[in-house]
Amino acid sequence: MTDLARLSLNQKTTNSWSLPEAIAGCVRAGIESIGVWREPLAEIGVDRARGLIEDAGLRVSSLCRGGFLTGTGESERAAAIASNVNAILEAAAIGADCLVMVVGGLPEGSRDLPGARDRMRSGIAALVPVAADYGVRLALEPMHPIFTADRGVLATLGEALDIAENFPAEQVGVVVDSFHVWWDPQLEAQVARAGAGNRIASFQVCDWITPLPADTLLSRGMMGDGHIDFRNHFDLVTAAGYTGDIEVEIFNADVWASDPDDVLATMKQRYAECVLPTATTLFADAG
Amino acid sequence: MTDLARLSLNQKTTNSWSLPEAIAGCVRAGIESIGVWREPLAEIGVDRARGLIEDAGLRVSSLCRGGFLTGTGESERAAAIASNVNAILEAAAIGADCLVMVVGGLPEGSRDLPGARDRMRSGIAALVPVAADYGVRLALEPMHPIFTADRGVLATLGEALDIAENFPAEQVGVVVDSFHVWWDPQLEAQVARAGAGNRIASFQVCDWITPLPADTLLSRGMMGDGHIDFRNHFDLVTAAGYTGDIEVEIFNADVWASDPDDVLATMKQRYAECVLPTATTLFADAG
Repeated sequence: MTDLARLSLNQKTTNSWSLPEAIAGCVRAGIESIGVWREPLAEIGVDRARGLIEDAGLRVSSLCRGGFLTGTGESERAAAIASNVNAILEAAAIGADCLVMVVGGLPEGSRDLPGARDRMRSGIAALVPVAADYGVRLALEPMHPIFTADRGVLATLGEALDIAENFPAEQVGVVVDSFHVWWDPQLEAQVARAGAGNRIASFQVCDWITPLPADTLLSRGMMGDGHIDFRNHFDLVTAAGYTGDIEVEIFNADVWASDPDDVLATMKQRYAECVLPTATTLFADAG
Repeated sequence: MTDLARLSLNQKTTNSWSLPEAIAGCVRAGIESIGVWREPLAEIGVDRARGLIEDAGLRVSSLCRGGFLTGTGESERAAAIASNVNAILEAAAIGADCLVMVVGGLPEGSRDLPGARDRMRSGIAALVPVAADYGVRLALEPMHPIFTADRGVLATLGEALDIAENFPAEQVGVVVDSFHVWWDPQLEAQVARAGAGNRIASFQVCDWITPLPADTLLSRGMMGDGHIDFRNHFDLVTAAGYTGDIEVEIFNADVWASDPDDVLATMKQRYAECVLPTATTLFADAG
């Protein structure tokens, strides 16, 4: 099962599972790493979560998520900073490799994209010292431009690196999420740039499927169901020196309606089939 | 009505109208320019179309569209080139300012995005001499990354300019379509670059609306209904030296279901309200 050594289950992929259920599911499936979400973490608290994760022997590839820094007004900004400080504390408490930052979209009724990006930058700058104090690495996640308006004004890896490079690499990195970046004509150059600066904090995979489901938030597919060449992405991040976990994060109503243990079995199979550089004998085991 | 001097109706905005109907509609509405689509053009033929357009005194801001150059195989490639040659002849025949090029997506089942982009580039290179012979300018249209898989692997203005700059500016330009490029963190820099090289062949406007309609192809909104700051885009292309037509191209089921004369009235009002740099007295007239 060596092939699974770097595979991480992002909890969102098994959305119906609680954190204890997801941890137990990883153990059953031979998965050694997990990406944790804040809401299910809050349900059981960081102390219990840390205990369960340690007992299971899992790594925590990420905590999802901080961010949403684009709001206007003093009180909204203060609330966002406070929420992110809590996220940093949680990430430190469960030993997460990074805190994924989804920066936020345009405020309701606003058309001022440059202004939202300014607030994103100043919000990140305000959080870096806090994260540094707790030894937590912020992982800036560029999001597919389908989400620029309502979720993440940070749209490209290049833009994420422009921000990250203002800070030490151990404090601010970037997420290379196949779904979000696959279309980018600068992908190869920017992944190389990220690697040269030791900025790749997380590598996530899930597929771009067409036709796009009606709810774009749930438009991500299992690897192999769409248009992305994951093996190419694996080669790019590997050439850039990334050796960390490979996290599968799928928002998809059909996946969420399936039995989570079945989802993990499919995920393992597709990971070997579509992501890892060579075919393995895993198919026979998983089939 | 001076304010409407640069406004152009892209025929797709009034999708239920034939070309003669759209021409007559422009005349009724005081719109002096039209963007023509090939299918309705074919219904009446280029000779009759040219006559109607000349009689109406309209400019033709664009012919939509050439492209779809990413197919594999000799016969598919030959068919694409032949279709584009016909499009070039049609653009010349009706005196279109440019032929808009939607380059095409990934072939069915393919995940080879770099390969598709290579075929796009070689297809364009093959067509430039033909377009030059007929005095037609090719306008490369970067498409929103929501369409990378199924419609246009050309995703950014920067990438479009990288290609266009291999050829004389009078032969190959780019389309700045607000809907497709508004999210781009490099928008300001790339519009300036396009202007410096005299590469802006077309400026199109329509809005990014949320939630995105279920059929993403029909997800474009009337200016003012979404998140785009058109006035900023107007300022950017103006600073870049663009003085040509401003074309309104809206794919939207609700717009298409409305009375086209009403659509034109709304379009004129929103153009003054959201696109032009200062408010005008047009509201009173259009209200």
